[in-house]
Amino acid sequence: MASDNAYTRAGVDIAEGTRAVELMKAAVRATYGPQVLAGIGAFGGLFDVSALKGMAAPVLVASTDGVGTKTKVAARIGRWHTIGQDLVNHCINDILVQGAAPLFFLDYVAMSKLDAAQVAAIVGGVAAACRAAGIALLGGETAEMPGVYEAGEIDLVGTIIGVVEKNAIIDGARVQDGDTLLALPSSGLHTNGFSLARRALAALDWEAARADLDGASIGDTLLAVHRSYLPDVQKLRLGGVEIRGLAHITGGGVIDNLPRILPPGLGAQIQRGTWPIPPIFALIQREGQIPDDDMFHVFNMGIGMLAVVPRQQAAQAGATLPEACVVGHIRAGLDGVRIV
Amino acid sequence: MASDNAYTRAGVDIAEGTRAVELMKAAVRATYGPQVLAGIGAFGGLFDVSALKGMAAPVLVASTDGVGTKTKVAARIGRWHTIGQDLVNHCINDILVQGAAPLFFLDYVAMSKLDAAQVAAIVGGVAAACRAAGIALLGGETAEMPGVYEAGEIDLVGTIIGVVEKNAIIDGARVQDGDTLLALPSSGLHTNGFSLARRALAALDWEAARADLDGASIGDTLLAVHRSYLPDVQKLRLGGVEIRGLAHITGGGVIDNLPRILPPGLGAQIQRGTWPIPPIFALIQREGQIPDDDMFHVFNMGIGMLAVVPRQQAAQAGATLPEACVVGHIRAGLDGVRIV
Repeated sequence: MASDNAYTRAGVDIAEGTRAVELMKAAVRATYGPQVLAGIGAFGGLFDVSALKGMAAPVLVASTDGVGTKTKVAARIGRWHTIGQDLVNHCINDILVQGAAPLFFLDYVAMSKLDAAQVAAIVGGVAAACRAAGIALLGGETAEMPGVYEAGEIDLVGTIIGVVEKNAIIDGARVQDGDTLLALPSSGLHTNGFSLARRALAALDWEAARADLDGASIGDTLLAVHRSYLPDVQKLRLGGVEIRGLAHITGGGVIDNLPRILPPGLGAQIQRGTWPIPPIFALIQREGQIPDDDMFHVFNMGIGMLAVVPRQQAAQAGATLPEACVVGHIRAGLDGVRIV
Repeated sequence: MASDNAYTRAGVDIAEGTRAVELMKAAVRATYGPQVLAGIGAFGGLFDVSALKGMAAPVLVASTDGVGTKTKVAARIGRWHTIGQDLVNHCINDILVQGAAPLFFLDYVAMSKLDAAQVAAIVGGVAAACRAAGIALLGGETAEMPGVYEAGEIDLVGTIIGVVEKNAIIDGARVQDGDTLLALPSSGLHTNGFSLARRALAALDWEAARADLDGASIGDTLLAVHRSYLPDVQKLRLGGVEIRGLAHITGGGVIDNLPRILPPGLGAQIQRGTWPIPPIFALIQREGQIPDDDMFHVFNMGIGMLAVVPRQQAAQAGATLPEACVVGHIRAGLDGVRIV
């Protein structure tokens, strides 16, 4: 199915596929900047990177990820425009932690039976998040795979490409004893822990407003959009804060993700009560009778991103990002993450 | 799940996921060249593109695709190491048609229940094809999504990034009346038409050797690996043949894919009998009672790639690629593709 640039939608019912492409075309085009050589090619997306020639040593950073079973929450609620945003923001954060600025994105949506309006809503969300981040939605693919996907279920996968100067790669190597851990707040579960959360909350009403969720429903709360930390990290940099390490808190929680950026011999101590934990986590823990340790091992617990900054710059970082919280520090001789 | 560079395997049973990563680690590492900054980052894959600075106007070409329901054939036969090769070669061809040389690849494998040996076989195939093409398998993701995928079913998705000089982009603009159509042979169905083929052949024995498939079984024939045309196109270029257009014959067959690269006012005439059609297509057509038109609209019918070359270079191109066949030519005033 030829269409706009690389935005083909193949392997699907032709009329319904064409309708989906028509519905999403304007949203996809709205993400194109001058670097996208639209209309030139039909098989792959073309992105002019002549600007990289001005860099000393450009390094491309790439990541592929999916939104996991958050799709099942979208299906239960029947709301499809937010998981595309989750996907893009998740991927942005995954390369942001290495210091990369995103350039472009590609998506893949698959299901047992194509529904043009549903696909357009999903890809519309992908396009909206790309536009918000100033990146191009360079390509995509929709697949109809009866017998592979269960009826009514979908998978949504994305790939992001960004760029960073080789000597500006953030890899945690400069993290030091005494550095401050700055937590950037999450909007909720983001894109992890949904199998456990759905099991814990299965028997409850997901549509009703709840006092213990500040008046929101479980459905709305679970579908809260994964935050992109691109603006926050840009502000820290513009403010002159040295970012020594960044950990995107995804599957495995703070416990598994923070150690990925800590040099040998350094651990982290995090002080409970120093940041707000959104009420959805208490509800999941109570309903699922989940031990504290497991909660911190599966969920982000309100911390979407951890930044490691020099202790002397902690106050400045806090002033730059009023929502951020100092939640702990780096300690020599500690093994992994200790939450006290 | 932290692991080798960006090769994380998240959202899965931790012990089984770790086992899968261990099993595939050596194969993935074997694809790394000096441009892969391995070990530096843990969240995204890092690829040094300083070499692009030597180009006049580097353009990145990107494409995402899946192998569709060829996965169901792999499941029926219980053979998992070839669909990864299909995926990589399909993606290589998709950007090759725009003149791009592939740089790196990322994969995504999802299923209802992770099986380490199965994932390692699939990703091993991806890695083998990447290595054969001289590109890095820079990242990947495995997702376990019970309730989204049917039991025993998987999806396999890949993203490829390549590069081309802006003034060397192949887009069909230079295709002229009288140009020669050179067909590069397919190995079989490649990665398209499997829903129809499976339906047509469902009742037959897929394991038995068949005289009408030159002694091969249906299963082996259907799983024949999607050919990469990277070596052929490189040979044509090294031989000084001007490639004016390239069409990767995927879903929609010659009928839909060739017009994507033809300038307005130009069509193509293709002469039946000028190239060998692998016997699997006759078997599918007979068993499924499929009209001729539909066959050419769904399957590649033995033509995996069509190259448009100047008439004066047709003989030279044929000498360079002995397997290739002159199957027709470009004609002004013809609308689309006419197969006579």
